[in-house]
Parts: sequence; structure tokens; C-alpha cells
Amino acid sequence: MTKLTIIKVGGQVIDDSQKLSELLTSFAALPHPKILVHGGGKKASAISKSLGIKAQLIDGRRITNAETLEVVTMVYAGLINKNIVAQLQALNCQCIGLSGADANVIRAHKRSVGKIDYGFAGDVDVVNADKIKTLLAFKTALVFCPITHDGNGQLLNTNADTIATELAVACSEHFEVEIRYCFERPGVLQDAEDNATVIDVLRKQDYEKMLEEGSVHSGMIPKLDNAFAAKARGLKRVVVGNWQLASSGTEIREA
Amino acid sequence: MTKLTIIKVGGQVIDDSQKLSELLTSFAALPHPKILVHGGGKKASAISKSLGIKAQLIDGRRITNAETLEVVTMVYAGLINKNIVAQLQALNCQCIGLSGADANVIRAHKRSVGKIDYGFAGDVDVVNADKIKTLLAFKTALVFCPITHDGNGQLLNTNADTIATELAVACSEHFEVEIRYCFERPGVLQDAEDNATVIDVLRKQDYEKMLEEGSVHSGMIPKLDNAFAAKARGLKRVVVGNWQLASSGTEIREA
Repeated sequence: MTKLTIIKVGGQVIDDSQKLSELLTSFAALPHPKILVHGGGKKASAISKSLGIKAQLIDGRRITNAETLEVVTMVYAGLINKNIVAQLQALNCQCIGLSGADANVIRAHKRSVGKIDYGFAGDVDVVNADKIKTLLAFKTALVFCPITHDGNGQLLNTNADTIATELAVACSEHFEVEIRYCFERPGVLQDAEDNATVIDVLRKQDYEKMLEEGSVHSGMIPKLDNAFAAKARGLKRVVVGNWQLASSGTEIREA
Repeated sequence: MTKLTIIKVGGQVIDDSQKLSELLTSFAALPHPKILVHGGGKKASAISKSLGIKAQLIDGRRITNAETLEVVTMVYAGLINKNIVAQLQALNCQCIGLSGADANVIRAHKRSVGKIDYGFAGDVDVVNADKIKTLLAFKTALVFCPITHDGNGQLLNTNADTIATELAVACSEHFEVEIRYCFERPGVLQDAEDNATVIDVLRKQDYEKMLEEGSVHSGMIPKLDNAFAAKARGLKRVVVGNWQLASSGTEIREA
């Protein structure tokens, strides 16, 4: 099977034009087929604030009311996505920017209202891996923003990590998928204070031991939980590392 | 050659959800291949105003400063484009929303500064008709917003009529192109007060006569000039009419 590389970058890279430029330069140099999934960044909050829309957070999660959905659609699918696409084209990286509504590639449903009403937050139902394979066949990278749709005309706001993971799992049908979740640090560190102590390979049992010992930086825990969950769903290779794609980062393994 | 239908809709349809819905329903029913080009609408001005960005107009043309470019990129490429795509998907019309940067389909250059500096306004250089043909081959409609790029990472704001015309002309290499410019009225009227007096076919010499007589509604003149210019560039069929695509409108002919 052909190898497919999926890179996920979050807001911290998006907000830093120097880091974003480094990331896009190394992404452009990767062989096809490849997918970039980007998150939001501070711009959506800044625009919301300027427009007088109050950010609603419950348990640290943003509530997507109708006005917020408009803002994230504008910022993620418009401003961020098209600027990334234009920058990649300038680097001779042929690409198309997509939301989940485009080519109907990611269908989601509005998260059902339980204890908390998350508003227009979308949980992924179906990724159309055949369609993605077709689009990737033209040596065209795909650049996904974290906006999906429900198939009935409603756009939805979906977590970018989730989109990256669901794309990766669905595409495993056609490709050997390697996914890299990028964040600030060069990988999982032995010593949280020393960037030179990157762990090359982190196995599940070692991670559990680190959790018991309390030696994992708390901000890393949800990211690593997500990475181990992704690995458990059959991906060929899962890496966490920084935006410098040439650095090897930490490979996540089940055993 | 295969027939390709290109529909251009402007702000007045975009701003009216009922008209937009009617338009999208009839667009969804058209046979493939097909392209929809949409303009802006009042939303960009409203968002600009809320953000405290003053609209600059010179001779009725919007000046695209850096802040305005951000807003139109958000509103046109994000909010409007993705909502149209989601609505078309709900109508079982497979489609992809594109800016000119996506797949590098429309390259433009920043309009050179003469008497007036239009800011980040883009004049079209190249339309990649081969790429468009490839994308259309999958029974996928293309939905264009009026944002282009210069190939060096800069997004640009380009008039939607211009995009529609340039797409049509470039695609004439591969297709028999029919383009319909949609606006409020059902076509060119004999009697500007009576929508029932649509002229079926308007020839250049008759249009010139109408201009001499002053019997063309002033708001129609730039639109009709544009339509005649498009026809002169080798398009198979040029129509001006309203958003109800089943209505025949006025066909524009050179002679």
C-alpha cells in the first residue's frame, strides 16, 4: 500500500507566522500523498470579541452558538485555510483546501444535548475515504479546516484532532497511514524541562507508568491519550512532535 | 464537445435566503458539468462595520486594504462558500468550493497602482482550464468564491463577474460553454417597468440602438457590456436573467 502522511497542526503554530512558514516549507517538501489538518488559533476569539460575541466555555470546551459558528466558519474555512493554501502554492505544493462539506468528505451530526448543549459542535459520522483517495491521486495535497456538515445543509464545528484522527483511520483502508500530531515540544520528554530528552518510542505500558509517576506534563495527557487511541485504531505509525517535520518526535506504539 | 454551464450570482441573491435557496435547487437539478460563481453580499460590509473597518469606495469601487482583504476572505471563501456547498450537498449535488488559490486554478496579480491604488484587488492572469476539467470529470460541481491568489502567497479580491467570464473563456478550450449572469430582473426588458416584456435575443446592434435611445436601465449597462464582451470572446451561449434558472432570460448575441 502507498504511504499517506497526515500532519495535524494546532492554534499555536497557526498563530506564529514564523513557525507556520517553517511547517509549510517542510510540508511542501514531503512526498505525495499528504494531508494537512489545521486547527483554529486566536484569530477566531479575537474576531468574536471584536464582534461582541462572548466566548462560552464549559469544562474548557468552547460552546458553538450560531454566531460563533459563523465566526469559526469564516476564520477556519476562509481566512486560515485559504492563506495556507496560497502559501503552499507559493512553495510549489499543489493543494486544495477543504471543509468536510466539500466533496461531502466528512459528514457529522450535531452533538446531542445531554448535560451540556455544545451548540453546533459536530461529531464525525462518516469519512468518504474513496473520495479522498480520488482527490489525492492528482499529486494534490489536501488542506482540511475543522468545519464539517450534517448532510442537511448545516455546517458544524469539529475538533481538528478528531478530524485528523478520523481521516487517518478511514484512509487506512487505502493507504499505510502515518500521522503526526504537532505541538510546541519536540516530542514526549523524559525530563519535561529539557527538550533534549525526547523519548524516541513511547509504548503504552511505559506511558501508563509515567502517568502513575506523574511525570507527564498535564497539557500533554489529552494529546497522548488521543494519539494512543488513534494508534489502537490500526494506523501504521503515530508520531507526536513539533512543527519541524524533519525532527523525529516520539513514536507512539501499543506494545 | 460537452456542454458546460456556468452560473454567476451576485450579492442580491446571496443576501436573500429564499432566492438563494431557489437558485441552489435549480442549480442542483442542472446536468453536470457545471460551475457556480458567487459574489459577496452585504455580510462583508456588515462584518467590516462591526469590526470598525471603514469601507473605502472610489468611483463606486471598493478599495481592498489589508483589513478588508481579511474580511472578504473570511466572508466569501469561508461563510458564503461553505454554506452554499453544504446546501448543495443537502440537495444531493456533489460539489467542491474553491478559491482561485485552490488547485492553483486562477492566478491573478495585484492591480498596479495608477491614478487609484485599489489595494489587494486582483486582475486575472491565468485560469488553469485543464485542472478545472479534471475536477469536473467526477460529476462534481465547482463553487467559486471571488478570491484569487498571485502565486507568491498573496490572496487577492477579484470581481465575481470577471471570475465567471474568465473561467468561461478559458474552459471554452474543452467545453461548449453556456454562461448565465443572474440578477434581479428576468432579462433585458422592452419596457423597464414590465417584467413581462423580456427580450428573448438581444443582438449587439439592437443593444447599441437601445443605448442611443436611452431605453436601457442604467444599472444594466455595465452588466450588459460585460455580457457582450464575454460573448465576443467565443462563448457558445451567453444569457442574462434572474435566479430562476428555468426562466429563459435574454440571450446575448453578437449579430
